[in-house]
Parts: sequence; C-alpha cells; structure tokens
Amino acid sequence: MKLTRNELRPENLAVEESLFHTANGYLGVRGNFEEGYPEGVQTVRGCYINGFYDTVALNYPEKLYGFAETAQRMVNLPDIQTTRLWINGEEFSAFTGQLHHYQRQLDTDTGQVTRHMQWQSPSGQKAQVSVLRMASFARPQLFLTLYDVTLPKGGSLVFASEVNCDVANFVDPSDPRVASEQQQHIFLEDTALLPDGGVVTCRTGVSQLQVAACQRHAAMAPANITSQQTTTGFTTRVETTLPAGQTFRLVKYTLLSDERRVQNPTAHALQLAQNCLDTGADALLQEQAAYLQSFWETSRVQIQGDAEIAEGMEYNLYQLLQSAGQDSISNVAAKGLSGEGYEGHYFWDTEIYIFPFFLFTQPQIAKKLLNFRYSVLDDARAHARIMGHTKGALYPWRTIAGSECSAYFPSGSAQYHITGDVAHSYMQYYTVTQDIAYMAEKGAEVLLETARLWLSAGHYNRNGQFGLPDVTGPDEYTCLVNNNYYTNLSAQHNLRSAVQIYNLLKQQNLHGPVCQKIGFDETELAAFTQAANAMLLPFDETLGIYAQDDSFLEKPVWDFAATPQEHYPLLLHYHPLFLYRHQVCKQADTVLAHFLYEDGIPEDVLARGYNYYEQITTHDSSLSTCVFSIMAARLGLHQKAYQYFLNTVRTDLDNAHKNTKDGIHTANMGGAYLALVCGFAGLRVKPNGLHFRFSLPAQWQGYQFSIWVQNTLLHFCVTGKNLQITLKKGSPVTVYINGKPILVNQAVCIKEAVQ
Amino acid sequence: MKLTRNELRPENLAVEESLFHTANGYLGVRGNFEEGYPEGVQTVRGCYINGFYDTVALNYPEKLYGFAETAQRMVNLPDIQTTRLWINGEEFSAFTGQLHHYQRQLDTDTGQVTRHMQWQSPSGQKAQVSVLRMASFARPQLFLTLYDVTLPKGGSLVFASEVNCDVANFVDPSDPRVASEQQQHIFLEDTALLPDGGVVTCRTGVSQLQVAACQRHAAMAPANITSQQTTTGFTTRVETTLPAGQTFRLVKYTLLSDERRVQNPTAHALQLAQNCLDTGADALLQEQAAYLQSFWETSRVQIQGDAEIAEGMEYNLYQLLQSAGQDSISNVAAKGLSGEGYEGHYFWDTEIYIFPFFLFTQPQIAKKLLNFRYSVLDDARAHARIMGHTKGALYPWRTIAGSECSAYFPSGSAQYHITGDVAHSYMQYYTVTQDIAYMAEKGAEVLLETARLWLSAGHYNRNGQFGLPDVTGPDEYTCLVNNNYYTNLSAQHNLRSAVQIYNLLKQQNLHGPVCQKIGFDETELAAFTQAANAMLLPFDETLGIYAQDDSFLEKPVWDFAATPQEHYPLLLHYHPLFLYRHQVCKQADTVLAHFLYEDGIPEDVLARGYNYYEQITTHDSSLSTCVFSIMAARLGLHQKAYQYFLNTVRTDLDNAHKNTKDGIHTANMGGAYLALVCGFAGLRVKPNGLHFRFSLPAQWQGYQFSIWVQNTLLHFCVTGKNLQITLKKGSPVTVYINGKPILVNQAVCIKEAVQ
Repeated sequence: MKLTRNELRPENLAVEESLFHTANGYLGVRGNFEEGYPEGVQTVRGCYINGFYDTVALNYPEKLYGFAETAQRMVNLPDIQTTRLWINGEEFSAFTGQLHHYQRQLDTDTGQVTRHMQWQSPSGQKAQVSVLRMASFARPQLFLTLYDVTLPKGGSLVFASEVNCDVANFVDPSDPRVASEQQQHIFLEDTALLPDGGVVTCRTGVSQLQVAACQRHAAMAPANITSQQTTTGFTTRVETTLPAGQTFRLVKYTLLSDERRVQNPTAHALQLAQNCLDTGADALLQEQAAYLQSFWETSRVQIQGDAEIAEGMEYNLYQLLQSAGQDSISNVAAKGLSGEGYEGHYFWDTEIYIFPFFLFTQPQIAKKLLNFRYSVLDDARAHARIMGHTKGALYPWRTIAGSECSAYFPSGSAQYHITGDVAHSYMQYYTVTQDIAYMAEKGAEVLLETARLWLSAGHYNRNGQFGLPDVTGPDEYTCLVNNNYYTNLSAQHNLRSAVQIYNLLKQQNLHGPVCQKIGFDETELAAFTQAANAMLLPFDETLGIYAQDDSFLEKPVWDFAATPQEHYPLLLHYHPLFLYRHQVCKQADTVLAHFLYEDGIPEDVLARGYNYYEQITTHDSSLSTCVFSIMAARLGLHQKAYQYFLNTVRTDLDNAHKNTKDGIHTANMGGAYLALVCGFAGLRVKPNGLHFRFSLPAQWQGYQFSIWVQNTLLHFCVTGKNLQITLKKGSPVTVYINGKPILVNQAVCIKEAVQ
Repeated sequence: MKLTRNELRPENLAVEESLFHTANGYLGVRGNFEEGYPEGVQTVRGCYINGFYDTVALNYPEKLYGFAETAQRMVNLPDIQTTRLWINGEEFSAFTGQLHHYQRQLDTDTGQVTRHMQWQSPSGQKAQVSVLRMASFARPQLFLTLYDVTLPKGGSLVFASEVNCDVANFVDPSDPRVASEQQQHIFLEDTALLPDGGVVTCRTGVSQLQVAACQRHAAMAPANITSQQTTTGFTTRVETTLPAGQTFRLVKYTLLSDERRVQNPTAHALQLAQNCLDTGADALLQEQAAYLQSFWETSRVQIQGDAEIAEGMEYNLYQLLQSAGQDSISNVAAKGLSGEGYEGHYFWDTEIYIFPFFLFTQPQIAKKLLNFRYSVLDDARAHARIMGHTKGALYPWRTIAGSECSAYFPSGSAQYHITGDVAHSYMQYYTVTQDIAYMAEKGAEVLLETARLWLSAGHYNRNGQFGLPDVTGPDEYTCLVNNNYYTNLSAQHNLRSAVQIYNLLKQQNLHGPVCQKIGFDETELAAFTQAANAMLLPFDETLGIYAQDDSFLEKPVWDFAATPQEHYPLLLHYHPLFLYRHQVCKQADTVLAHFLYEDGIPEDVLARGYNYYEQITTHDSSLSTCVFSIMAARLGLHQKAYQYFLNTVRTDLDNAHKNTKDGIHTANMGGAYLALVCGFAGLRVKPNGLHFRFSLPAQWQGYQFSIWVQNTLLHFCVTGKNLQITLKKGSPVTVYINGKPILVNQAVCIKEAVQ
C-alpha cells in the first residue's frame, strides 16, 4: 500500500512525523523534514534505537519500600536527519516561497518514504526536490537518505549535512511530571572526520552506554565534499554546479551502532558504512524490496471491498514489522520506534496484542520476542523478590532492559497478569510450532518460574479455593482487587502449561538441565496442578456472568448519562479512587479473558458477559475495541464486530486518540490483525491444532491471509460464503473449520463455510 | 514532675532536643544548646509556629488526576536560640574543657526547661552557666531565655546573641515519614535594629506568608549592649565585667508573630516585646506558673505505685498542652511543635487520640480544636469535589491549612474515616458539654456536610446493604478495601449524629441558619437514617468476629515466625502490595472500632475480635498499644491491659520507636491518657452520661483524675478497691459506675467499686 499526503499542513506535521517514521525494529527515525521548520511548527525531532536507554531517577513525594527507584528511558539519539540546501545561494525550505507540488508517501512494498516537491523560491527560482528515506530491514543499522535536486535553469547547489549531538528528549513544559527531570541523555565523547563525513561517539549520562553514528556521503555527479568538526558533531558540505534540467543525487549513509549490541560501536558503524558505500544505494534499495516481498508473502492480509480498511490493515502490519526488535535483547515498544510516548517501554501489549501476528506469519521473529523475555528472566526473579516473593519470577509492568519502570504500582507492578501473559505467549508458541527444543532451552524455565510466582502470590481460602488477592487486571479503572477473573484464569493456564511442558520434556528426557538450573523438584508439579484446579474464578449466579473480580459487581455502575463527552478519557478527569469505586472499565478485561481462554465456558455465559461488560466499557484504552470486535464476531454479532473493527483499524491513520504525535499505537495495530484473523476468521489455537469459524462482514467481498502452523504455510481465502485453503509450503496439516477437522493437502474449497 | 538528665551524651542529644523542647501551642523551640555543637553531633536546630507553613510542590513520576499538587509544610523559622559566650576571651561550650556538673531539667509545674553547668574551660577557668527557657502559655508569642553566669574569680563576659534567618528544613530522603526534599522556606525581607536587639521580617518562599521575630535583651547588671545587622539578621552583643562570685543574668525576650494571625507581624512582635520588657522576667515566670497551676488543677492524672509511669503520664499531658493550638486556626500536629516529622501536619490523631483529654479536662481548648476543623470545612468540601463527590465534605488525611497534603492516596485520602472521626469529635463534644449553641453555630454544619459525604461515597448493594467501597481504614497495611468495618461504623454514627443534632436544633428552632447556609432539605434526613440502618458491617460467622473488611479474613495470615525482628516496622522492609495481601495490621482497626462504638456488640464478639486481631497486629504505629490496653481492660484482661499501657506511656521518654529525634508522638501521649481514663477507669461517653468501670493494676495503690461534664468538675480517686468521687465545681450530676447511676453531690465513696 501507499500512504500518501498531498498537502503540507503545518498543524498535521507532528502526527505525520509518527505516521511517516522509518524504522526497522532496530532504529527508528521520525518523519522530520531534513531542512527543519520555521518557529511555531509543532515537531518532535527524533531518532531512536530499540532498547537503547538512559536511566532516570524516579523521585516520589512519598516513597514506600520497593517503589522503583530508577526507570529506563529510550533516548533521543544524535540528530542525523538534517540536510540544508542552498540553491544559487538561496536556502531551500518547504515553508518559504511556493510549493507547486507536494507529496509525501510511504510505500510498504519498497520500504521507502519519499517526499517530492516542486518549489519556487522567494526570489522566483524553480527546483524539484525529492528526498527518499529508508531504514533498512536487511541491514538494521542503516538509515539511508537519497536527496535529488533538479533545477530547470541549472545553478549551484550547496548541501550542509549535519550530525548534531546536542539533543534532548521531548518535554512538554505544561506537564509537571517531567518538568524537573533531566532531559538531556546523550553526551558527545568523540568526533572523527572522514573525507566524506565522519563518526561521532556518544555516551548516555547515567546508564553510561555508548552509541556511535557514522555518516558518509556520496554524490552521483562531480561535487566537492568536505567535512568539518563542530562543537556538537560534524557537518559535511557538498558543493556542485548543476546543469539545467539534470538531476543531482546526494546519498547519505547513516549507520548507528550501540554498546548493548557490540563492544565497539564506533568501529562497527565505520565498518558497516564502508560496506554500504561499497554496496551502493541502488542495491540497498533492492535489498529492501526483496526483504519486503518475502515479508508480505506470508504476512499480507488482503481485504476486498473497502480500500480504506485495506489500507489501514496493511499500514498496521507494516508498522508492526518496523517496530519489532529482532535481536533478542529488544522487543516491541508501545509506540514502536516512532516517538517517545511511554518512553520506549515494553508492556504486555507485545504478548497479547502483537506476538500472535508474528507467531502466525513470521515465527522466527516471534521467537526473538520470546528470547527477549527470556533474557530478562533474572530481572523478573529480582522483581519478584522486591515484591515479597521468595520464589518465582514476576515480570515488570513496563521496562526496557528488565527492571520495573512503573512509578505507580496500583496500575503498574500490581498488574501481575503480565506474567501470565508472557507464559501464555510461550505456550502459544509451542502449540503452534511444536518447537520442543526451544521449550527445553528456554520456554520451560520461563513457564516453571512464572508458575512458581502464582503459588507465592496466591493462597487457599477457607473454602479451599485458590485465590489471588490484591492484583490489578487489565482494566486500570479498577485497581488492587481480589481475584481478578482475567488474572486468575491466566494464572491457571500458566500453572497448567508449566506442568504440561514439564511432562513433555520429561517424556523426551529433556527436563534435566532446567531442573538443575532452577532447582526444580517434581513435587512442585502437584502443587501447580492443585492450585490450578482450585483456582477461584468469581462467578455471579444472579447475573449468570463471570465477575471482573470478587467485588466488582457489588459496586455502583458509573453514571454514564451524567458524564459529558469531554470528560473522556475518564482517567484525565476523575480521581482514580472515584473510578475504582464504580463499575466502569477502561478496556476489555473479562471479555479479553473470554477471548484468550474460552475453553469450558458455556456459550450463554460468554454472551451474557459480553453484553454486560460492553455497557460499562469506555474503550479509553486503544487496546479495547479489537477485543470487543473479536468477541462480537465469536458471538455472531456481526454488525458490532464490524463497527468495533472500524474503530480499531485506522486508529493512527485517523489520529482517533488525538495523541498519534507521541507515536503509533502498536498494540492497537496488532489488535486490528487479531480482529480479522481471530475475529472474522475465528482462529483459536487449541492443543489439537488451529480452529476457525469464518464470517464475512456484509460490506466486503472477501479477505485473505496466510498462517504458519508447525512447518506448514497455509493460505486462507474467503470469497463470499466460500473458503479456500491452500497449502503453500510444508506438509499436509489438519485444521478445524467450524469444529470439523479438515486435512489440507494442496488446496481445499469449502462452500458455505463462511457465516 | 521534673524530667531530668544529668549526663551530657552527644548521641542522645537529638532525642533530647525533642524531649526538652519548649512550646505553648503557638510556638515551639527544640531543645538545642544556645552555644551550638561541634561537628559530628546529630542535631536538628528548629523553631516553629503552629500552622505556619510554606507550600511545596508535589512532583510525581506518574501523576494521575486529582493527586495533590502541593503540600503545606511547617517551616523552620529563623534561629532565635543562639547565644555565644566568651569568658575572659575564651568561648564557652559544653563540649570543650570539662563539665563538673551538668543537669537539664523540664519542670512541668513551672513550665521551664533549665540547663545547669559547672564548667572548667580548656585553659582552666571555672564558671557556672545556667540557661532557663520558657515558651509562655500566657503570652503565646513569647519565648524567654534567662542566661545566668557566675565566675568564681570574676572577669569579662561577652555574649553574642543572634537572630539568623539562613535556615532550612530538615531532610531525610530515605525515610518516608519525614520530608524528602531540601528546601529553604524562609527569606529575609527586612531587619530593623533596636539598641538592645532588633526585629527581622521574613517571608516564606511560596505561600508568601510573613513572619517576624523580635529579640530584645536586658542585663540584670551594668553591661554594654549593642546590636549590629548581619547578612542573615542581627547580632546583639552584651559585654560586662563580672565581679568574683556574683551572678550575671542576661534576659532574652524573643517574640514571634505571623501573618496568619495578624496583619502586621513586625509591629505586633515589637509591641509585644515592649510589653514583656515592661513586665519583666520574674513576672513572666510567675504568669507561667500560675497558668500551669490552673491547668493541672483539672488536667492532672496521679498514679500511686510506680514513679516512672507517673512521670511518663504527667510528661505526656504536659506535651499535649505544649502542642495544642488554641487559636482556632491551628491544631495538634503529629509531632506537636517539637520537630519536623510528618511536616507539622494534622491527622485524625487529634480527634481520636488527643481531643478527649482536652474535652474531659480543658473543654475550652477542645472547642478551639473543633473550631479549626470548622475553619477548613470549605477546603473539605473542595476536597470532596476533587475526589468525585458532588455533595458533602471530605476532610483531608493530612493538612495544615485545609488542603490535602498526602502524596500517596491509598494510605492518604482513601482514609475516609477521618471524616467520621471529625464528626465523632463534634458529637462527643456535644454529649459531654450539652453545648447546643455551638452545635447551632458550627457543629451541625460539620455533621450534616460529613453525613452527606457518606451518601455519595457509598451505595446500596444488591442485598440492600449500604456499603463503602475502596476505602482504607486505620490499618495502613491493608489499603483500598471494601467495607472497612471501622469506616462503616464511623459513617453509621456520623449519619445518625447528623440526624440527632438536626432534630435537637429543630426542637429549639435553631435549625434555620444551617439549613439556609448549606441548602439542607429535611428530606435528606430520611436518606441518612436509611443508609445508617442499612450499613454493611462485615461479620464472619465462622470466626464469630467482625471482619476488618469484606475480604480481610480470606487473606493468608502474615508469616510472623519467618519475620526477623529487624524487619519491623514492616513498612520499611516490605512492598505495600505484599503487606496488603496478608492478614497483618499495623495498628488497631477493628479493635479501635470496638472501643469507640461498642454499643450493641455482644461481649463475646468483642472478646473474640480482640483475641483474633491481637495475634496479627504488629503495633508498628504508635497509635496501637493504647487501644489494645483499653480493650484489654474492657474485657478484664488486666495483665495485658497493664502491659500495653507500659508500652504506651513512655514511648518518647524511652525512645521506643527510635524516632523521637523527629519529634514527640502526640497521639500516643493522648492514647496513654485514654488508656488510663477509658481503659483502667473504663470511661465511655453515652447519651445518658458518663459511664465508668474502674479497675486498678495490681502494681499500683491507686490513681486520680478529674473530668468536666457539662459545667461540673468531678474528681475521681481510686484507692485499692475503693472509689471516691468528689464534686469540685458545678452542680450535682449523675454518672454510671459499673452500669449503676450514682448521683454525685459533694463527695461519694463507693467501696469495692474497683475490679
């Protein structure tokens, strides 16, 4: 797809900086204009590396024991975007003179963002200026810029391309939470010049991590290139004289490298830059297209019947790819690499909303995301100790490098469910891939340590039920409750998964190393099973629904009629204690539990639960509507499913939450995928395989997607009432359509399979 | 009594600064040495005015709607204590040379703190130095110092007496119980010199409140007195030559005045200083003694049989007098005026622990304390709005001038019970004094507005019970619970008190003004009564006890056996979430409810509750043991009652909580009084009068105290098994002894009345 903007509207630029950011899972560059902005234009000029952070102090006016004392924050790196251009001595800017043509475009097949301008300068000179930007998926350290200029009358060109280390993280002066905090995180240590550029070496202020940015330039026509050190980095000047009608191309190779990945980032960046120069821009562009061709081959979701929705879906999936760390020490931040919202932190968003897309279409990336959680397992153990547990691992609510970065525990660390969510993703991975070797190597350790956590966090009440007091579920409008249904169900599955994986490993005699490593004694299994079987799942007999927690349904329902529209999202207008005191949900909680863990729950309970919670959910979180869409589809509420899907699929393209300037909503994007594949296509992962129940929104003619299961790639094509399943790669496999097993061998057509 | 220390031990000085502070309810001066300290001696040099505050910003790393954005903090005022002394050119210090005699003494009958020293200087000179300090109860703005020097061999004396405005508040970033941010709050605006001293005018940095300190000096023998401005205030030099064996006396009159009380503090302080000079030191000392004679006449509690306990009790009552604001715009801070712990804030400590002492023995002071809560009723209304309530008043958990100053709402604003506690104190006041005019003027407004709060905070559940979700009771080890028994019971009484007082006013046609002022409609009364009658009081049928809250008894009991002694207080060693998850109480909660609101609760339920909660209470709060003492006495557990009383009565004298350096524990002191009068003497205030059940600890021979009831002063004297009640002032009155009405007319002797 191509996302196109044909108008330059200054008031939209901050949002477009997020929408048109270029990233590759390792680095991300916001869509800022190379030439800069006049005063008064809202902009966040940013460049980030996934997982590269500084440490900031968390100062509380009233600090209690165990409150996180520091947080990790994704840092704004040296500005490597700036290129100023003088045409016959007159400086180019999209904001001066006249723009006779303007187009910015993201192409998700080529992986490029381009900006085309026909410009007439204040003095009347004409020029065509085009800029192409690419964050290379094949070479994650590379950010490439191609700068093309054509002058109808010819003339002199002077480029000044800067690397500027005088950068700070974004501050909102009206926000008292950040006013007193240190915002400069990057300090220049060294600058070395090259004939066509140079390299800067910087270090973060507190975490003391090194990062290097090497920038080299190549002119595609004779030009004079010189570089010069500045107090904040270096500037490369490129001067040439351009004949009338000809196009001058300047290629900027920017390579970032950091100490979390390599020992000597400076040498690494220099080496990679040389490789890129040797390869040349054209080949690099081809690599990008080839990478994306392969990506879309399995990841593409096609929708026939609504171009805007199709555009939104493809945009979302591309952003997920741009956001996903693939190096096992990074993950998917809430805003990807597109902005500084949520400070580059990783949440449960990955496991519940984003991971399935990768699991089903790029399982090798899914595995890297799991690796990340494995890499911070020691931190999760340490976090559990801080929170009072002598055994087990408690994943932090928000983190970059593993430690808890939440500064308000009632809707932070108290969300113990993230630990169950991580366990769930490991178990999903195993069920879909059957990768037992990975379970032996890493998965079992995570599952056993997380299972141990629940035994410590919970206890048997006087009726012999196993309960989990004082936790917070996904719905942050109700905090510190007893027996949050979602959390308890998640813990129950975590406990059972641990037992199941342990037994599988034991059958193959693969259980030894993990037992030895974590001192696991088989007698613990019985305790896991006992707690899982005794798990308290609060059910309200009067309403015939599961209660969000022990006391939720006893509280008064929020007075929605008396709540003016401008009071949403409620969290910005009501004290948390007032929210906690009412039946009002920020997002799907029990309904999400029914999506993830539906087995054994009667249809009428699912339906009543959906109806009940829908009435009291505000969807103030962008993680909510997709879940309601999925469950509406599950319950045959097709109109609702479609409406919630519409509210999900273009969240950022339409800036629906009014904060896309801070970055894209990656979980929501994953949720759009889930709403189609698990919603309309009804996919559920069960122990015996993949189960589907297809439906087709009345507004569409059909849709298509592919799914990896074990080593088999299946393609699903819905057209009207008909379903075609095609075996694209691998061996025949059985899937379940509306409960019936279907062996997919080559291609299968099922008529009237779609509701 | 006399509190005496005969040894100068540097390591004890910080604690002694609190123990020997001099205060009078308006100003407080820590017991610092005039001459200062050598480096390395821990000291907090402080001088405070009750209710005089600066405003500090509360910056949260994660701020949610409605979090208090600023707090009031009692400020350390200009240092007015310093007096340096040179004897024949050699500077005096208790830390140099040799001390042949040292004694510091507080005399609670004269209201003086004296320090006597026989000193031998490093060069061998001998001197007697005595300092007398007094915060005048008769003239609250006056702090008086008498400095006496005797030289066996005579010689020259030079005094340098300073007023120094370069002061800051004390900081300990590692302790949540004291302020965490260093801030200078006092800024010098003006200095004016007088021949014998001067006056400084200062202003606080943010609250912009003016305070003036005038200091004048008088020598009781010929001396040369000069004053000189300094960058931080002024210094007064007093020079004289002292004949051998004679005593030179220097009198320092320090007068503080502030803008919260008067428009022009500087002029006020100057005027008062002149008055004091005219009166002279001897007369001022006599005023003090006369004030205290009158105070002890009604407030003295005598204990025969244990001198240490008697000392502790009298010390405590004196400290309560020193701490209590009597001007209707101040109250009793958690640490009184003795230190900066809890930042000079007023809590529920006043109403539940301290107020009864004044009500029973100095009702005119009790009324001033009520006036304070009335003066901040508008702030309580505003606080209720922030917390989401459209009607009613919610008192802040901690405040100086009325706004919520708590920065952690789960154990701050969520403690809604403080509103019930305030209402309780008004109702107690009425029941004991029958002062219906005060109810018409102020009390009814407080009772009706607080009653309205409960209707907004609570709701009817599906069983028709009225519940209060998401509150925190007195026990801060369990936060944000549903239906805290203490809170619900307190709300129930508040609702009923509002109805009762309204009806009484209406009978006398006094209800008009309050109805008009707060727009009160009589139909609200029915709602009050209905909610009170339907109040949910969680009772556990299995254990036969009231549950601290809906889910408390379902949680696992804290593992006390596995908790090492050095992990107490638990709040400094465990994450709050881990504490919340267990049955463990910081302090009396349900047991306190049973003390305050015992009517209608069967004896066996009281006894089982006591036994149950005693097992799981750590008494990590200094407000706990007194309540257990009272209830143990109530239940005939005499040995326990006595043991808990011992753990209460000398908390500060023995530095039992290891933090007396931060200030005295005023609530604990009030609690010691309650443990005697409501514990051993079994006093309960009931609608028909005062009820007693006397007991005598086996270790004592007897005890005595006086009580005001309406306009009658009764004196109670227990000797062995016998009780004598004497009518000291006023008309005959009926009291209830062991349930039997006794008309007290002159003197009544009741044999075998004491258990």
